[in-house]
Amino acid sequence: MSRFLKENYKSLEVYTPGEQPKDGEYIKLNTNESPFPPAPAVVDLLTKQDVENLRLYSDPTLCTLKEKLAKLYGVEKENIFLSNGSDDILNFAFMAFGHNGALFPDITYGFYTVFAELHGVEYEEIPLREDFTVDYKDYLGRNKLIVIANPNAPTGDSRPLWEIEEIIKSNPDSVVVIDEAYVDFGGNSAYKLIEKYDNLLTVRTFSKSRSMAGARLGYAIGAKGLVEDLMRIKFSTNPYNINRLTCALGEATVDAEDYYTEKCKEIMSVREYTKEKLEELGFEVLSSSSNFLFAKHNKISGEKLYTELKSRRILVRHFTKERICEFNRITIGTLKQMDTMIDAIKEILKGE
Amino acid sequence: MSRFLKENYKSLEVYTPGEQPKDGEYIKLNTNESPFPPAPAVVDLLTKQDVENLRLYSDPTLCTLKEKLAKLYGVEKENIFLSNGSDDILNFAFMAFGHNGALFPDITYGFYTVFAELHGVEYEEIPLREDFTVDYKDYLGRNKLIVIANPNAPTGDSRPLWEIEEIIKSNPDSVVVIDEAYVDFGGNSAYKLIEKYDNLLTVRTFSKSRSMAGARLGYAIGAKGLVEDLMRIKFSTNPYNINRLTCALGEATVDAEDYYTEKCKEIMSVREYTKEKLEELGFEVLSSSSNFLFAKHNKISGEKLYTELKSRRILVRHFTKERICEFNRITIGTLKQMDTMIDAIKEILKGE
Repeated sequence: MSRFLKENYKSLEVYTPGEQPKDGEYIKLNTNESPFPPAPAVVDLLTKQDVENLRLYSDPTLCTLKEKLAKLYGVEKENIFLSNGSDDILNFAFMAFGHNGALFPDITYGFYTVFAELHGVEYEEIPLREDFTVDYKDYLGRNKLIVIANPNAPTGDSRPLWEIEEIIKSNPDSVVVIDEAYVDFGGNSAYKLIEKYDNLLTVRTFSKSRSMAGARLGYAIGAKGLVEDLMRIKFSTNPYNINRLTCALGEATVDAEDYYTEKCKEIMSVREYTKEKLEELGFEVLSSSSNFLFAKHNKISGEKLYTELKSRRILVRHFTKERICEFNRITIGTLKQMDTMIDAIKEILKGE
Repeated sequence: MSRFLKENYKSLEVYTPGEQPKDGEYIKLNTNESPFPPAPAVVDLLTKQDVENLRLYSDPTLCTLKEKLAKLYGVEKENIFLSNGSDDILNFAFMAFGHNGALFPDITYGFYTVFAELHGVEYEEIPLREDFTVDYKDYLGRNKLIVIANPNAPTGDSRPLWEIEEIIKSNPDSVVVIDEAYVDFGGNSAYKLIEKYDNLLTVRTFSKSRSMAGARLGYAIGAKGLVEDLMRIKFSTNPYNINRLTCALGEATVDAEDYYTEKCKEIMSVREYTKEKLEELGFEVLSSSSNFLFAKHNKISGEKLYTELKSRRILVRHFTKERICEFNRITIGTLKQMDTMIDAIKEILKGE
């Protein structure tokens, strides 16, 4: 850190992304990426001409991609905001709407506290219930920026739509952000409620269900006023923040919706299979509507299981936060990867 | 705008990017893009495997690209900061280092005022001299965040290194940002001064001399402490903000340095040719060390020339700010494009 940095930022605890080890191959189940490549039409899309055209700026209005998404979801293109990954959108939301404070669960996406600290947003972390689910009643009538990941991470739990609507309805003077990064794996999307509520922003990503984590493309479906506000922030920071190739690949991705729907089903089926296998081995596994499982075992600590798996070149995500340190978050990979992991866990448990 | 937006942002005047018209072909000389495609090795780089691998996050440390740039410039990789375009870096710099106020010229890159307004940074716009050059003496001993584009835009003027060093030396308690977006077209880079001064950040981009405006890749060469500070902001907003393809293309770009050096020379030569031709037609053309010319004619207003050229499907950039509204900024295209423009201007002037 230099002596020039603004005081407010000196104590920031930055976000720690999942490990990206460089010492050879791992079965990588630690950052909730898709085990499947993008759709064939996406993989085949780029030509040399596309790369040559990189000499030109991208279209900052992103008009075609917005229209495609609007059509897919049956909303207007003025309800769509696009940015460089959903983290970018969440960051803007804390910046634009956090001035009266923010509320989110104690166990959720770890970046929310970072955004809040960065923008000087006072926040309250509301404990999940004993069973690691959000109690919607905790968020009623608070009129602060409310950020709920639904499905939540790293727990995987999804709340029903009526509970989400109660939260939105009872906080008419503040923005409710529903982070739907994992919604395509069996969650309940709130986006249709934007017709009824001007304070709703749903935030989504191409990183998980659409196999494009490395392309950096996030979108929000929200009330028009909120989308305008986010545009104002984007055009005051980095108007061209989505590159030309990502934009083209994003358009082809929306066109290939059926492929991704199919792959999501496959991931959900492998998830249920894996859950059953883990339970047979004595794990407590939280019910999940996402592309990961959150699991613990009373014979082995969370940290030890993580370490033992890593030594067998299988990476899962372990968090040190006290309430969840006995758990590991396991991304759903291919069936074969899951079987390899189950076998490894059997071997590890034998040693306990 | 919604009723939820933070008060500070309600009056923001956002940055207006150059036009990206969609009504067919133009000779596009309005956004300082390169007329040349990326190097052949860059154009040929991407394989289907690269697109398939988009399912995975990029490496947030960007280690290889940093090492390549560090080697190219003879600095350490801890002196290199990478982000999603140089706008992104400038934005972070205003955020991190602007708390004691900022100084920059009255005629310069239009985004500086936007960044300052966004982050509540008090700023002073210091008039350029009559001849549209920076007087370094205006910036001595001010100890505020100083942001100088060198070469400056839209004027094209480049200041000698000793003047830049005087500014850096006389402001030891504040950060000096030298925006070197156009430095490869004949400017004087200050980056080697990072060995002597801990308050220097030079900001650069792959958008202009490296033909990658659409890929979004900016970098800074700066004192290590400042680079650490920028990393702190980046890892508190969007750690993966450079996508996998851009990262790979960026690495190949650095490997092809000779190609780009050659193309820069060609652009500089076409620039001097164009300047001469414009002067023959009676234009006042500022001396330029960039990939554009800034020119006015006393027989036709800046706005009219812009409009007449646009009606002939040639786009240049016109600014409405009073002091420069008689000028147009003309990006250097290919020799053929310049000849077409010169012919069009001859025709337009005949009508005056």
